[in-house]
Formats: sequence, structure tokens, C-alpha cells
Amino acid sequence: MRILVTGADGFLGRGLVAALAAGRIPFERLVLTDRLLGSAVPDGAEAIAGDLADPMFLETLLEPEFDLVFHLASVPGSLAEREQDLGHHTNLLAPLALARGVAARRPGARFVFASSIAVYGDLGAAPVTAQTPTSPLLTYGAHKLMTEVLLSDMTRRGVLSALSLRFPGIVARPVRDSGHGSAFMSQIFHAIADGREYECPVPAHSTCWWMSRQAAVATLLHAAELPASGQTVVQPPVLYASLREVADAVSRVTGRPALLRWGKDEILRRTFGAMPPLNADPARALKFQADADLETLARAALSGD
Amino acid sequence: MRILVTGADGFLGRGLVAALAAGRIPFERLVLTDRLLGSAVPDGAEAIAGDLADPMFLETLLEPEFDLVFHLASVPGSLAEREQDLGHHTNLLAPLALARGVAARRPGARFVFASSIAVYGDLGAAPVTAQTPTSPLLTYGAHKLMTEVLLSDMTRRGVLSALSLRFPGIVARPVRDSGHGSAFMSQIFHAIADGREYECPVPAHSTCWWMSRQAAVATLLHAAELPASGQTVVQPPVLYASLREVADAVSRVTGRPALLRWGKDEILRRTFGAMPPLNADPARALKFQADADLETLARAALSGD
Repeated sequence: MRILVTGADGFLGRGLVAALAAGRIPFERLVLTDRLLGSAVPDGAEAIAGDLADPMFLETLLEPEFDLVFHLASVPGSLAEREQDLGHHTNLLAPLALARGVAARRPGARFVFASSIAVYGDLGAAPVTAQTPTSPLLTYGAHKLMTEVLLSDMTRRGVLSALSLRFPGIVARPVRDSGHGSAFMSQIFHAIADGREYECPVPAHSTCWWMSRQAAVATLLHAAELPASGQTVVQPPVLYASLREVADAVSRVTGRPALLRWGKDEILRRTFGAMPPLNADPARALKFQADADLETLARAALSGD
Repeated sequence: MRILVTGADGFLGRGLVAALAAGRIPFERLVLTDRLLGSAVPDGAEAIAGDLADPMFLETLLEPEFDLVFHLASVPGSLAEREQDLGHHTNLLAPLALARGVAARRPGARFVFASSIAVYGDLGAAPVTAQTPTSPLLTYGAHKLMTEVLLSDMTRRGVLSALSLRFPGIVARPVRDSGHGSAFMSQIFHAIADGREYECPVPAHSTCWWMSRQAAVATLLHAAELPASGQTVVQPPVLYASLREVADAVSRVTGRPALLRWGKDEILRRTFGAMPPLNADPARALKFQADADLETLARAALSGD
């Protein structure tokens, strides 16, 4: 098995690389790529930095004819909204070029794409499924949706075997991570664990979808090994809870009080904090799993794994 | 008003250009473009041939900073399915480059995009609306859908004012037109009018959505002049009828019998001849109109206009 991980130096990428390096999927070659590679490269893996939308770099990168690609690289939503050319390049042109390049060299390769719940946009109150109509409110979500459409079409034609996973904001990202409008979802974990006060920009009753990095990595690995099912877009199961419920769980797990003040940013609330419930039965039928409960989520989010 | 028409030498483009040249929308400049331009250029219009995905050509083409763009250029579905690189270039990269180029030079320009009902893919029996879930069965439809998503996002950001119109197969295309899997929809008009026998690849009870070129041109012009409504994807009204009903209407209008034999091509039937009814109320509310009835359609389709 020859495996490629893009965005290998990102938050999700580092978690996936650790699991792969630990032997979670046996590999003949494991190649890591990112715009910049700052993390240590595990034994047995190879690392090469570059721009996926650069045809010369792609030619070099794809020489091993990968059987399995995890495409995690992207510019986060808020940053992509401000820097439209960067977003277009990294979140649209790069995945299109990568997917076509992989398919040309190794037709039928498994291509696991980290898509996003940003594809949905304004959701009503009805439970969400992968069939819920999409109407992205951010260019980031539009680009993810366009990539999903391309990957589904390539899978229909048999040139790739792609799975697009619609991830929520993964917690808890490092405090220094920026560019994510959903950063508050991670900050509440760190603030409570550190005994810090934190001014959360949205109200306590805001409802979000929650997933730890461990659950996200397990989702990626499961997608890599899943037999082709005809389902190319998967809405993985998540935990559904308000910020207050999550803050309470973090307090219980850490034994520290939540020193949080709640804000009223309506745009952020509407974009990230007004999620309806999720019907993830189709994904559960394929054996995808969420974190077991909020305390498990809190422990996982704070473990650093 | 500075107007650009791409695909100006195609079937729909020639009809639109005739209406514009006749003064249907007053213009200061009317620029026509296509890969090749074989038709006569009307008085007052300018024509320039080239490849929209070529940045150098686009730079020259967009110099007038257009207020209104009709983007009709595309490679038809069957051809794009066989020639994937050509389809990717013309049906995906070209509209992306054009839309971004237009927006960069004239933010807020009206951009009317000829999308396609191929975005839907396998439809059930329930009436279709623009909210019906999309699952394209052809790369052509996937590229149209991806372009719609980009245009909706650009409209949300205010950099364009785009409308994507989901057209059915337009009738009656010239007999020589190739590359369209739905060619049979046009051939039955010509065969009956010419008194020719014709072997239709799908059964007589196949149901299609019908629109004459006159109705399609009226739809494009209406979209150009419509105030921004927040609706960026429009499913225009069409006539809903079986092939047999349409053949009967053509016979009544021409006074000639239909010398048709019906085939059983299941792929073509599923792709083009298994359409459910359409609920076009949202488009009707915006004053879009279908052909008045099947005999009006037959007369229009055979008029050559």
C-alpha cells in the first residue's frame, strides 16, 4: 500500500500521520506533503513540501502511484473568505489537480477527502442528512462542495474510488490556530482546562456538532478501508450539543469551573452555532462512529493526541 | 450596456445573437466569442474567436469590462463524457476563469449561465424544483453543477450578479448537430417535417422536458433584465410531454404522419427520457415562461428562428 497524506502538517494531518506511523494501515510507502513541513517525520515516512496546484510539483509528488490518498490540505474558512485568490488556488484548483493526477496514474485509487459541514450553509431545524440541500455561506464551503461533486463524478466513472467526509469543526485545535471562524469551539476546552477566563463570541445555547481529533482520525481510517458502497459523500456521526453542555462536560472532566462570558455575534452563531440535529444513520450503517459521549469528547480533546 | 456572448456560434448562441442584434437589449458594445466563428457577424457587433480558459485570450476579450455576460459555451454531454480533458477544460476551467475575470473587471456584472437539467441526474417520480437534490450522471452535469455553486458564491459575495438557468435539451437542433445524447428529441421534429423514417433510440412513452430555441432565448433575455432576487439558480418552466405526444403535435402542425420506430436504449431513456413533472412555480413567480403548448413548440422548433 502506497499512501499519500496532504495537509500532513495540519491539526488533523498530524493526528492521522501519528496513527499511520503507528501501523494502523500497513504501508509500503507513506508520503507526507504540505505547503511547509514543520513537524518531525516519523520513521519510515517521507516528506516533501510544495504546492499541489503546481503541475511540476504534482508530477514529482505523484510518482509513486498511490493506492490511497488522504486529501486534508485546505485554507480555513475565515482566511479563505478574506484571501479569495489563496482560497481558489488551495481549496479548489489544488484538489481538482490532485484528484485528476492520482486517477491518471492509478485508476481506482481510494481518495479520502476531508470535506466540511460548511457545504450546507443555512440549515433549517430539520435533522440533517447527506441529502440535505446545500447552499454554502462561505467560499470555503462552496469549494468543498465543488470538489465533492467532481470526486463523485470520478467515482461514478471508476477512475477514482472517492469518499468525501463532511467534518464539523474538530476539537480542540491548538490555541494558536487561526483562520477558523469556529475557533471558539476549541477555545472553551483550553480556557476551562487552563483556568482562564474566555469571552466566547456566541451565546451559551448555541448548538454545534462536535468531534474530537481521535474520532476524526478514526473516521478517516475507516473511510480508507471501507469497501466501495456507491455512497461517495458521507456525513459522519457527531455529538450534538450546546456550548453550555460541552463546557459543563469539560468542567466535570477537569474539575475546574468554566470562566466563560457569552457573546452575541449573530454571523458566527448563524454559521457555526445554529446547527440542527443530525441523522447519521446512513453513516452508522457503514460503521462510522462519533465520540461516545461529551465526557469522552472532552478527555479526547484535551489529551493532545 | 456592454454585452458579451460566449458560445455565440452555437445553436442557442445564434438565436440569442439574432435577438440582441435586433435590438432586444440596447447595447453600446456587443462582443461575440466562440472557439470558431463561422456565422455572419451582425451589424454593430464584434466577433473574436479564442479559448476562454487561455489567460492571454481572456485578458484581451474582457478589456471592455462587460456589464452583461451570457455564458453559453460548452462541449455537449456525450462528447464531454468521451473526451474528459476537453470537457474539463471547456465545461469547468473556462467558466471559472471567465466568471472570475468578469468580476475582477466589473464587480456586480450580470452573468447569465446556461446550465442544464443534467445537474439532477437520476430523478425519482416527484415533481422537480431547483431544490431537488442533484446527483449528475454525466461529467457534463457535474461541471455545470460545480459552476452553479461557484456563481452562487460569487453572487453571495456581491462580486457578480449571476443567474444559472437549468435548460433542458433545446429543440429542434440542426440534423447535423452531434455530441448530444438527447439528439433524438430534435430528430423527431425534422424527420416528421421531412417525411423521413426515423429510428428513435428510446420508447414512445419516454417523458421529456421541452423548450424551443425561441423560449430559451426569451428565458436568457428575461434573466439578463431581472432585478436581483437572491435566487441564483433557476429551473425555467418547460413543457412536460412524452415523445409520442410531441410527435403527434408535430404531425398536426405539419400535416405529415410520424414515420417513427421506437427503440429500447435504457441508458438514454434513463438519462433523457424518464423525466418526472416539473414544479416551476418559483420561476413563474419571476415571470419566466415556457412555450405556450406543444403545437406552439412544434411551430417554433421548425421555424428555424
